[in-house]
Amino acid sequence: MANEKMEMSEVGVTLVSSEVKPPPARPPNKFERVFQPCLGELVGTTFFVFIGCVSVIENVESTGRLQPALVHGLAIAALVACMAEISGSHFNPTFTLAIYLCGGMEMNMVAPYVACQLLGGVLGAAMAKAMTLRESFTRVHGAAFAVLQPDAEIGGALFGEVAMTCLITTVLLLGAFNVKTKNPMVPFMVGCTVIFTILAGGDVSGTCMNPARAFGPAVVSNYWTHHWLYWVGPIVGGLIAAILVRLLLGDRKMRLILK
Amino acid sequence: MANEKMEMSEVGVTLVSSEVKPPPARPPNKFERVFQPCLGELVGTTFFVFIGCVSVIENVESTGRLQPALVHGLAIAALVACMAEISGSHFNPTFTLAIYLCGGMEMNMVAPYVACQLLGGVLGAAMAKAMTLRESFTRVHGAAFAVLQPDAEIGGALFGEVAMTCLITTVLLLGAFNVKTKNPMVPFMVGCTVIFTILAGGDVSGTCMNPARAFGPAVVSNYWTHHWLYWVGPIVGGLIAAILVRLLLGDRKMRLILK
Amino acid sequence: MANEKMEMSEVGVTLVSSEVKPPPARPPNKFERVFQPCLGELVGTTFFVFIGCVSVIENVESTGRLQPALVHGLAIAALVACMAEISGSHFNPTFTLAIYLCGGMEMNMVAPYVACQLLGGVLGAAMAKAMTLRESFTRVHGAAFAVLQPDAEIGGALFGEVAMTCLITTVLLLGAFNVKTKNPMVPFMVGCTVIFTILAGGDVSGTCMNPARAFGPAVVSNYWTHHWLYWVGPIVGGLIAAILVRLLLGDRKMRLILK
Amino acid sequence: MANEKMEMSEVGVTLVSSEVKPPPARPPNKFERVFQPCLGELVGTTFFVFIGCVSVIENVESTGRLQPALVHGLAIAALVACMAEISGSHFNPTFTLAIYLCGGMEMNMVAPYVACQLLGGVLGAAMAKAMTLRESFTRVHGAAFAVLQPDAEIGGALFGEVAMTCLITTVLLLGAFNVKTKNPMVPFMVGCTVIFTILAGGDVSGTCMNPARAFGPAVVSNYWTHHWLYWVGPIVGGLIAAILVRLLLGDRKMRLILK
Repeated sequence: MANEKMEMSEVGVTLVSSEVKPPPARPPNKFERVFQPCLGELVGTTFFVFIGCVSVIENVESTGRLQPALVHGLAIAALVACMAEISGSHFNPTFTLAIYLCGGMEMNMVAPYVACQLLGGVLGAAMAKAMTLRESFTRVHGAAFAVLQPDAEIGGALFGEVAMTCLITTVLLLGAFNVKTKNPMVPFMVGCTVIFTILAGGDVSGTCMNPARAFGPAVVSNYWTHHWLYWVGPIVGGLIAAILVRLLLGDRKMRLILK
Repeated sequence: MANEKMEMSEVGVTLVSSEVKPPPARPPNKFERVFQPCLGELVGTTFFVFIGCVSVIENVESTGRLQPALVHGLAIAALVACMAEISGSHFNPTFTLAIYLCGGMEMNMVAPYVACQLLGGVLGAAMAKAMTLRESFTRVHGAAFAVLQPDAEIGGALFGEVAMTCLITTVLLLGAFNVKTKNPMVPFMVGCTVIFTILAGGDVSGTCMNPARAFGPAVVSNYWTHHWLYWVGPIVGGLIAAILVRLLLGDRKMRLILK
Repeated sequence: MANEKMEMSEVGVTLVSSEVKPPPARPPNKFERVFQPCLGELVGTTFFVFIGCVSVIENVESTGRLQPALVHGLAIAALVACMAEISGSHFNPTFTLAIYLCGGMEMNMVAPYVACQLLGGVLGAAMAKAMTLRESFTRVHGAAFAVLQPDAEIGGALFGEVAMTCLITTVLLLGAFNVKTKNPMVPFMVGCTVIFTILAGGDVSGTCMNPARAFGPAVVSNYWTHHWLYWVGPIVGGLIAAILVRLLLGDRKMRLILK
Repeated sequence: MANEKMEMSEVGVTLVSSEVKPPPARPPNKFERVFQPCLGELVGTTFFVFIGCVSVIENVESTGRLQPALVHGLAIAALVACMAEISGSHFNPTFTLAIYLCGGMEMNMVAPYVACQLLGGVLGAAMAKAMTLRESFTRVHGAAFAVLQPDAEIGGALFGEVAMTCLITTVLLLGAFNVKTKNPMVPFMVGCTVIFTILAGGDVSGTCMNPARAFGPAVVSNYWTHHWLYWVGPIVGGLIAAILVRLLLGDRKMRLILK
């Protein structure tokens, strides 16, 4: 049991405490160690980007940002909860990077995970295109992210992406990887965070926080205006969160200093 | 402090309520093994279809799809949670089929379950008719599902039903039947999924995902346009999810290959 | 421990499993057995009716029934969860009656509980009056319930109150008192049910389901039109739920027949 | 029974994350006892006030109070859950005061906690200013609280702040500190309470309940009209809640009288 736990925490693919499962009769085979986690990321990201894009394409004005915010957040809660034991439920290159930096996964899984997430983003956006009317799809560039404000205000949008991603990554790292603060409700905590960050900041930058969510519809609708912002903002925000946890907020095992 | 914690863990708060129950003194009798589960499906589906139909009949335009989405999703969460130990809380022929294919129930209960669900759908829709004004009821065909888009776009609606049902059935199978990924919050995970799929896709196909929910109001208001779509879409989506879990995402016990 | 449990289930005032608490050093004194539970009902019902009435008085039209539905439901979830171990968190004469009929409390506590709930309803409605502008208060009769439909349709409103109260009482009895289906998430299950029943049926009868919630503002604003409906509907609905659980859906201990 | 429970507790799913943690090898050092809790309050309050202010600055009229209510409440739920083991997740001088009065923290930490909360409020409001357009920011005084009603009605606003803060502090004290009613879902219970109090009373006084949330934007936008109200109301409400719990609702350990 202790061995099993150690192994799991090194592979770092669990969001929910692994302690409730009986030990497997045999060690996991290569499919279970390598391919199934990648497949989990691919399927989860595909579903997440599909449903997120549909919610933006089919949005109605009278409800403000409520519909896309609830859709993205509740989708994260449900998908993270049901795939946590398969892949760790990252579905986001920024999360994969921050989790790696906090010792939550092995280096050789980082690139395959990010590749699966980006591929899932493209597949999900293509599924959204297949389901919706051409006019609705085109009107919002297939749900690709767009800065809604004048060019002079691009700084605010970038600041928003950095701050929001820093917030959500801090919630994820403390709720799922820092032993002292681990919480089995973490899928719902991260889902709540997606809801409130989109509700608050959705009209500034769209509150992307996830390059895979930005990349998929950008490819499918070939819309690249300000696309760099949805890579730079989330990655910088995720890095700040990882530093914050590694240096100051983490427990003795997570913290690199002040032990 | 350490002492206090130890003491707490002996009487720890568990989310899985079934684990805290003492073993039954006698094996369950025939009523408990056969009739009570069917009755649970009948009562649960009746309440679910009743409240779902009322939410559509009484919907107001200014809140988009928020009211029906929240009603259907929260009703599933509450009803699934309180009847799970009685019938397994399917309330949906597609779920019954997928659960059977994943080894979650015996074959001789499939037909009685589906019959009770369809009967519950009709009873629920009739209750909704008894409660609401005739004009409101007629305006939306008693909350029967309708494809809101031009005939040329019927493919998009079908694709939506298949994809959404595949998503929700995957969440259900992983959260409730796959041992490795089982989660005591599964009633709320499935409820969340109902909310976000209706919020996202409700204006394309209505996001039915459940033939019993479609069948009840169709009978009561005798409205059958495109009714086939709400059988074919959900069943195909449920089958894809069962295959996905059985071949690729399931644990060693669930998976048929790659062991 | 076994003794303690029996005692608790006879007093029957807990919504959340009593099994998680260490046994008290001494038996509870009279204040804890009699006065504190009544006080819990008084404080809880006061807060609930206060916040519920404010939500109706301060409602805005553009969000349909979302604001009052969420306020009543989330208030029930939070208040039930934090007072369950004090009074059982009924806050509703219908619940007290149904719980008594299902063996969940002693007969001599029924009348004091109902009295505290009605007094709490009046106090809560008076607090709502103290907080809000006179015009807003008067416009909605201090949030007293009103049938919004023509007199010919009073049957629909009565049917709605009966059906909705039957639904929520079934969720409560199965989630909190039927051992086989008990669930620690029951405060949130009942809260969800309040949300979805108000969202669905709020424009027919107001979805009261609670005579104490109806009685308080009726006294404070002296508005008694159709007031009988908010006693008859909930009580009949609660009785049907108690019969359903006692005869058919309950476990072997709860069920009176077919053992 | 006792054996079974013991066995279960070895693999039991626990909601209280602290119970699954092994005891620390060494006692916590000074950084962990003093500086890290203060840092947790600073970071948590900064994030909370930042996101709360952005939600008010970016609010749209058609959704009533839904967006700010959900943002403040879900932010509290997620941040309280992930920082509870670091600082106790007060993020509010009123909570710190009430918790101290109920024996939940040491006196020498009260002043540092309040200082960190106020500093976090200012930092959060400054971050909100950096992210949003100047016009939007100025229009709502940087999300500083404002009494929306005529001066003659200031009593209603004050009453509202007192009553709402009393309600939320009661939920917090019963859910997190009173042993008999402790509940691992308390972050979500308090989050729900934030949502429903803002939804109900947001147009009377803004439903602040937190001097740090009021102080930050007041400093950044230099807006001090009626600012005293957002200190007096919450503090009086918190004191009433502490008295209620200490004298009447608390368990034998918490209660000062009637033992």
